[in-house]
Amino acid sequence: MNKAIVLASRPQGWVKPADFRLESLAMPSPKDGEVLVKNLWLSLDPYMRGRISDAKSYVPPVAIGGTMVGQTVGEVVESKHPGFKSGDHVLTSLGWQTHGVAKGTEVTKVQARPGMPLSYYLGVLGMPGLTAYFGLYEIGQPRAGNTLVVSAASGAVGSVVGQLAKASGCRVVGIAGGKAKCDYVVKDLGFDACVDYKAGKLNEDLGAACPDGVDVYFENVGGQIMEAVMARMNFASRMIVCGLISEYNATEAYGIKTMRSVLVNRIRMQGMIVFDWVNRYPEGIKALSGLVAAGKIKYRESVVEGIENAPQGLVDLLQGKNFGKQLVKIA
Amino acid sequence: MNKAIVLASRPQGWVKPADFRLESLAMPSPKDGEVLVKNLWLSLDPYMRGRISDAKSYVPPVAIGGTMVGQTVGEVVESKHPGFKSGDHVLTSLGWQTHGVAKGTEVTKVQARPGMPLSYYLGVLGMPGLTAYFGLYEIGQPRAGNTLVVSAASGAVGSVVGQLAKASGCRVVGIAGGKAKCDYVVKDLGFDACVDYKAGKLNEDLGAACPDGVDVYFENVGGQIMEAVMARMNFASRMIVCGLISEYNATEAYGIKTMRSVLVNRIRMQGMIVFDWVNRYPEGIKALSGLVAAGKIKYRESVVEGIENAPQGLVDLLQGKNFGKQLVKIA
Repeated sequence: MNKAIVLASRPQGWVKPADFRLESLAMPSPKDGEVLVKNLWLSLDPYMRGRISDAKSYVPPVAIGGTMVGQTVGEVVESKHPGFKSGDHVLTSLGWQTHGVAKGTEVTKVQARPGMPLSYYLGVLGMPGLTAYFGLYEIGQPRAGNTLVVSAASGAVGSVVGQLAKASGCRVVGIAGGKAKCDYVVKDLGFDACVDYKAGKLNEDLGAACPDGVDVYFENVGGQIMEAVMARMNFASRMIVCGLISEYNATEAYGIKTMRSVLVNRIRMQGMIVFDWVNRYPEGIKALSGLVAAGKIKYRESVVEGIENAPQGLVDLLQGKNFGKQLVKIA
Repeated sequence: MNKAIVLASRPQGWVKPADFRLESLAMPSPKDGEVLVKNLWLSLDPYMRGRISDAKSYVPPVAIGGTMVGQTVGEVVESKHPGFKSGDHVLTSLGWQTHGVAKGTEVTKVQARPGMPLSYYLGVLGMPGLTAYFGLYEIGQPRAGNTLVVSAASGAVGSVVGQLAKASGCRVVGIAGGKAKCDYVVKDLGFDACVDYKAGKLNEDLGAACPDGVDVYFENVGGQIMEAVMARMNFASRMIVCGLISEYNATEAYGIKTMRSVLVNRIRMQGMIVFDWVNRYPEGIKALSGLVAAGKIKYRESVVEGIENAPQGLVDLLQGKNFGKQLVKIA
């Protein structure tokens, strides 16, 4: 049987495990040009909150009763496509299920290498890493000596943003929740400083960590953290709006009161989604692989065991309880 | 005597005429390299609200007791600079006074031409026109067929933005307060539509005026109008943050709840101040002069008589009571 997690109800506000349901489905069978994949790893990402909401977005939402969407890395167990054979490892969009059928054109072969396990293709070498790479360089345009701030700094995107910026000569300041994450960001990832937003003095701590203001801000969270950083941005600074996770479960959006800083400081703020650079993924993967191999990018994973625990994994991720890239180990 | 308006007190919230004081000063005398100018026209502009506030900005505020800042067009009445003679007309930064002394290097000769009176150098051929020109083209990057929305559409900046965008092949929608301004924008300036924000159904009217969404938004006002337009912006749209006049007198900033649109639609939002292109003013003036001469840009002035009435003129401007570029006729 193929076990799948489907959307049971459209959540209002915070997502609950009960918004999902485990179903046992018939094992699918590949047709010509298709492959049957046994999923090994599932990626959990903040964007998934948007996919289960019916607010207008860049793609239609998951239907009630539909299998949850998401990227996986899996193993081909039956191939009717000449380009694949059993045992090949592939990156797929098969979603929250143990097995699935995809066209050969819809999956990408990936290969584990020393120091780069298969799961990395869902993280540092996958969408989060590419989000960091293209957002930082294409919109943020960091220069040596700049101060860069990144929120959700210990997460899959934030940790890569900060390490890329360090490698590019920036002073890098993270924002994260709690001492453990902040310690990790500074001691393990090499950021210059990290502000614990849960410590209750965000503005003061941010000021101390950014004595020369902020030149590049990579935004993953929105809300009060966005306001606090915007108020410290420098002339001609850049702001990458990559995520607003603090708002994804809110029933009303937070009102940002620092638009004046955009005007006075001539901030350039731009929204991004990694798909915008889909034709350049090979460039990004090559660059990121090289930096991982050279030890310039370190990377941490947070693993939930079993497809049946994926809903709780997403709930924890949206509440910031994960520590590093959130994965589900399916098999 | 030289009559000048000085700042009497730093206003909190709405500006009042009593925040200013008329003073009679000794007639200044030019030294070598300087000219004595008799001011003819004074420009009143929304940015002046910022100059009398002590909030951090891009220049220090006017001191209490200091002469109000502003651009004027005047006539040289005594010259100790070889480049100027009595009777020359000049653009100055002498501020709210009937006379003033400036270095020859600090003033620019201007010349009235048929259809282009001297006062135009404070408006369509001056800072407001250049603000429209550089903001629209450098940040907005309008393309034929785009829908452009501009707020404060009948004002000195907005009216030029809209006409430039029309000349560049855009569908142009203004936002203005009241039927008279909206009629002017559509019937006299040739905008495709104008939304009266005072009519009480901003969202609905904006939707009707922009059936294909918004590709470029030139923001002069901020607040609820900014939110309403942001919610309708298209993929890869551009937003020029030129002014936030709705907030200049507010004691608390308005909270913008539409940041999600920046993310989902990949909006590029950028703050601007015309000084950013100071080295390119001649290019802008040449382009604008040509369009005015060709009848492609029409232009309206709102005139207050006498330096003593300048404070009331600024109060009215900040409340949106002016209609077209606000000037003070000094002599």
